[in-house]
Amino acid sequence: MRNLVILSGGADSAICAAIALQSGETHAITFDYGQRHRIEVESALAIAKALNLASHEVIDCQGILKSVSPLTSNNEVKQYQSADELPDGIASTFVPARNLFFLTVAANRAIALGCHTIYAGVCQTDFSGYPDCRRSFIDATEIVLFEALEQRIRIETPLMHLTKSESVLLAKKVMGDRFEDIMGLTTTCYNGVKGGCHRCAACLLRDRGFHEAGVDDPIWKYRS
Amino acid sequence: MRNLVILSGGADSAICAAIALQSGETHAITFDYGQRHRIEVESALAIAKALNLASHEVIDCQGILKSVSPLTSNNEVKQYQSADELPDGIASTFVPARNLFFLTVAANRAIALGCHTIYAGVCQTDFSGYPDCRRSFIDATEIVLFEALEQRIRIETPLMHLTKSESVLLAKKVMGDRFEDIMGLTTTCYNGVKGGCHRCAACLLRDRGFHEAGVDDPIWKYRS
Repeated sequence: MRNLVILSGGADSAICAAIALQSGETHAITFDYGQRHRIEVESALAIAKALNLASHEVIDCQGILKSVSPLTSNNEVKQYQSADELPDGIASTFVPARNLFFLTVAANRAIALGCHTIYAGVCQTDFSGYPDCRRSFIDATEIVLFEALEQRIRIETPLMHLTKSESVLLAKKVMGDRFEDIMGLTTTCYNGVKGGCHRCAACLLRDRGFHEAGVDDPIWKYRS
Repeated sequence: MRNLVILSGGADSAICAAIALQSGETHAITFDYGQRHRIEVESALAIAKALNLASHEVIDCQGILKSVSPLTSNNEVKQYQSADELPDGIASTFVPARNLFFLTVAANRAIALGCHTIYAGVCQTDFSGYPDCRRSFIDATEIVLFEALEQRIRIETPLMHLTKSESVLLAKKVMGDRFEDIMGLTTTCYNGVKGGCHRCAACLLRDRGFHEAGVDDPIWKYRS
């Protein structure tokens, strides 16, 4: 069993990498797509190294996806006081077709590396502002990849139906005594602040997840 | 009606652009993916200009897709004496997930440009060596895009069930007195030879199509 994980540098994909490793050789790719939070790419490099993954490629795809999302433009990232304030509907940070782009390139690399399974840290619980984080999207992607490749690529999304707090508890389980070490390397913040800004949607959801799990988030030690 | 056409610089996508123009404002994108036949990109620029398209963007995505295809590597393009010699099965020039990659980025641009229809010159007749040229693949792509975007993007493939000779006759019909002018700007050759090498699979299929249609191919005038 050979796996490919899409490693963003965030917590969810780091958990997926740890899960993938339990079933065999695991390779990783990271997309540098001109995101504002470039610190994520550095986090991904550190996580791949800490987990001793079989290979890790950072794929430069800047300028290929366009959007008005503050993640890829100069529009401002919205600030909130708590996760309860987050709006419903399509998130302002949505980059159209981003996850399909990631999975398509991942499938291309999976073929090159001989991997039959892609792990992706997408999750439809907690935050439904991204249509391309739902399992129905993943199912449709598996089908279109089979049509495109005449070869079955499975897309594992172990966090799909977990809350953030359940993901934290799962991370503790699969990472064991590496939990603090690995999770401390992850970056979630939309503003790219090491240790987190704790005012953007991504930070607030992470904070709530750790709080509800009753677990200390090791990134706080990096807070300036 | 606003359309986006994926313009490769080849004959098929030029015909699609001419068809798209009949239904409204038409924008174009061209992928520079490190293909050996870079002359295609120059052809695309010339075609977009000659057709006076609303906009045309060349998207640099070199290094993003990997394959052993001679189109993106140093492996040699196979030579044949006639189209009858071409092998069955997946073509050696297949770049895994290439068309899904193109359509995904096209969907991203369609959203940015306000286009609801993408035109693609894929064709399952004549040459079935690419699984991602079939309509079943296109149907699966429409579904996955709807899942990803919560917005319907139609993918028009007017050449899907036409033979190459039928495409030539269709081109004459939609291009009218611009036929020689526009088709003369297209490049099909896998070896990137202006006017065609007439020994690669792409040239031989084009030649056979024009021959069967009883139409002179205007690119022959460029032959050195």
